[in-house]
Amino acid sequence: MKEEAIRSAIAEVVRQARVQNPLAGSITNNVTIDFVANAQLAVGGSAAMVYLLDEGVAMAQSGASMYFNLGTMIPELGESIPAAARELHGAGKPYVLDPVGLGIGSVRTQILLDLKPLKPAIVRGNASEIIGLAGLWGLEGTEEDAGRVRGVDSADEVDAALDAAIAIARYTGGAVAVSGETDLVTDGYLIVYSEGGSRLMQKVTGCGCSLGGVMAVYAAVADPFIAALTGTAMYNLAGERAEHLSSGPGSFKVEFLDELFNASAEDVAANPFTVRGL
Amino acid sequence: MKEEAIRSAIAEVVRQARVQNPLAGSITNNVTIDFVANAQLAVGGSAAMVYLLDEGVAMAQSGASMYFNLGTMIPELGESIPAAARELHGAGKPYVLDPVGLGIGSVRTQILLDLKPLKPAIVRGNASEIIGLAGLWGLEGTEEDAGRVRGVDSADEVDAALDAAIAIARYTGGAVAVSGETDLVTDGYLIVYSEGGSRLMQKVTGCGCSLGGVMAVYAAVADPFIAALTGTAMYNLAGERAEHLSSGPGSFKVEFLDELFNASAEDVAANPFTVRGL
Amino acid sequence: MKEEAIRSAIAEVVRQARVQNPLAGSITNNVTIDFVANAQLAVGGSAAMVYLLDEGVAMAQSGASMYFNLGTMIPELGESIPAAARELHGAGKPYVLDPVGLGIGSVRTQILLDLKPLKPAIVRGNASEIIGLAGLWGLEGTEEDAGRVRGVDSADEVDAALDAAIAIARYTGGAVAVSGETDLVTDGYLIVYSEGGSRLMQKVTGCGCSLGGVMAVYAAVADPFIAALTGTAMYNLAGERAEHLSSGPGSFKVEFLDELFNASAEDVAANPFTVRGL
Repeated sequence: MKEEAIRSAIAEVVRQARVQNPLAGSITNNVTIDFVANAQLAVGGSAAMVYLLDEGVAMAQSGASMYFNLGTMIPELGESIPAAARELHGAGKPYVLDPVGLGIGSVRTQILLDLKPLKPAIVRGNASEIIGLAGLWGLEGTEEDAGRVRGVDSADEVDAALDAAIAIARYTGGAVAVSGETDLVTDGYLIVYSEGGSRLMQKVTGCGCSLGGVMAVYAAVADPFIAALTGTAMYNLAGERAEHLSSGPGSFKVEFLDELFNASAEDVAANPFTVRGL
Repeated sequence: MKEEAIRSAIAEVVRQARVQNPLAGSITNNVTIDFVANAQLAVGGSAAMVYLLDEGVAMAQSGASMYFNLGTMIPELGESIPAAARELHGAGKPYVLDPVGLGIGSVRTQILLDLKPLKPAIVRGNASEIIGLAGLWGLEGTEEDAGRVRGVDSADEVDAALDAAIAIARYTGGAVAVSGETDLVTDGYLIVYSEGGSRLMQKVTGCGCSLGGVMAVYAAVADPFIAALTGTAMYNLAGERAEHLSSGPGSFKVEFLDELFNASAEDVAANPFTVRGL
Repeated sequence: MKEEAIRSAIAEVVRQARVQNPLAGSITNNVTIDFVANAQLAVGGSAAMVYLLDEGVAMAQSGASMYFNLGTMIPELGESIPAAARELHGAGKPYVLDPVGLGIGSVRTQILLDLKPLKPAIVRGNASEIIGLAGLWGLEGTEEDAGRVRGVDSADEVDAALDAAIAIARYTGGAVAVSGETDLVTDGYLIVYSEGGSRLMQKVTGCGCSLGGVMAVYAAVADPFIAALTGTAMYNLAGERAEHLSSGPGSFKVEFLDELFNASAEDVAANPFTVRGL
């Protein structure tokens, strides 16, 4: 896929989400549940958050896609997330998985094991979460291929997760997005490094969580790779713009939500990235 | 009730809430729980949020009114909401019900059935929720009366719920508020169409939820119909003003909370509405 | 401890939190869980919120300190908070307790009784909560000593809790912070009255909760008394500055988070306070 084709696809996804207003339900953590919903609304989607088994299945049936974030576990999620994922998988609908907190607690670990055969369309996390998930799922790395693109400037941290990201993406047939100073998105064959963002995104809880929710909205109108890439480009653009308009993390979050709402499809598509094939 | 009398009553409710600082406890969803509390504080009330059976009953005993919103169910709410409502009903204290998510999941449905005999002072929802609740409660529509006021400009959507709203209000002896582009409030005999608001209220999660919480504050100092009308007028005024001051959904929410805090009683009372009798 | 030594210690705590980025996990209420995390990040800490037993213990093991706030109870917290506190106590790590809602419901009461032998490094609350906790824990007041400092201007409300605060601090060997118009912090022997803040802090939910979370960050890099004092001074400074920049509770919260992030160590240390020995 050529760079121009990717940019054109990104612009179309930004537009289609605003036109189609797809419903992307979530089972997500309580810390940033409001930020996830507001980000999804800001980019044009519809949001609905649930916890319980029958409600998760109902959202999977009525929505276009879903978002699962494992940030704050309660016992009910041990049943509801796998059941909703099973429903989505059976219906061929995409869902985004954010394995935040991987390694802490038995409920989270069991959910992640349950989700393996139910292949998420997009997995989104930081480098250590992606590495941890590939390990938990027992996936083989692809060291030879990955070696070729190691050492890209300012992408060292996310590149540590490149093998794991490729392995997960090839296993699921979807996409993996690794957040870092430079972000990495791969479908297992193409690797895109997306630039931008802001150091203040580390100082506001939920930038990663809400990005996962936005990817779920985009996954309702595009294939997983382009959806993950569009969400990443949107966040990098909005983050960079918001930093210029803000004087700390409080005002940053306000400006950031405004930018998600206002950014043009063309500007998101023009946000800097580089593509490499394996 | 004449228009001037209604406007005068609205102004008095806005003032009294600020003077009396009534405690309106909530059992509400986790997405917008912070917005509900902040909106209640902004209009002069006190807020306290709980989930559990004995805590819900304690809030019903110590507070002046309560707010129940069914947005994000956990099993505990299946017991705590009806128990708190029973306590309030027995004590003659008002509560506001927001049947959001009606039709999804068994816990929510059971709560709504349990609340029927415990007549909420105010039911607040969008058109489809109000229609759904009247159906779930098996209430007869009042088609003949309603027919007279159908077709009001820009109120078509909420007017679809007019029969249901009237039926619920006559059954409870309280008020029903239907949110839409133009909002409708009825006590089953008078119908008020309230104007204003902002398209950005659809882009910020919790404008409806927090309005319910504000109505619970107002219900502590006024009858249900005037309380529902005051909350609706306040939201329409604050929404319209906030839109002029904001550049997207992030800044809108900030400005909106400021306007709830700053709006004068006179300005809320002067917000445009029209009254029709049945 | 002389005033100059205290000011110097405060400045060092503000700096060290930003340099060390300590992880202070929380089990806290759902209303203000996002505000707690964002305030912790703004002052330089790391945040992680959990509910479940094994996750609370894991946070106690991996973090430098913790924060327990009893605002919104769910049954799981009856086990997880005491277990995490036991782990912290055994490891000699500090935790902050906010007994909000004390007296409401059986789960909260049982947790508070369980925590007594696990001596929190800092207890933070308003006057009635501190008085209530000393009563629940059956601690003797120290009326003679306290009598000496009663009647300080504008500190009458918090001074009503002075005996209780001293009794708790002497029992735990840590510090107690009482929030009011003037705030009081004591280690059981020194009493500090901290000035500043804003009337708008009463109109934004979570100023007290997030202060507790910030104290937990500071307790990771300082003794409990200085940590409690630094948090209080930071909040009084940021609150006063934010009020000047805001036009209501919505903008206040935004400016407040920016000030937490931007305030210099020297300015926090210079925030007005007075010290009295017993």
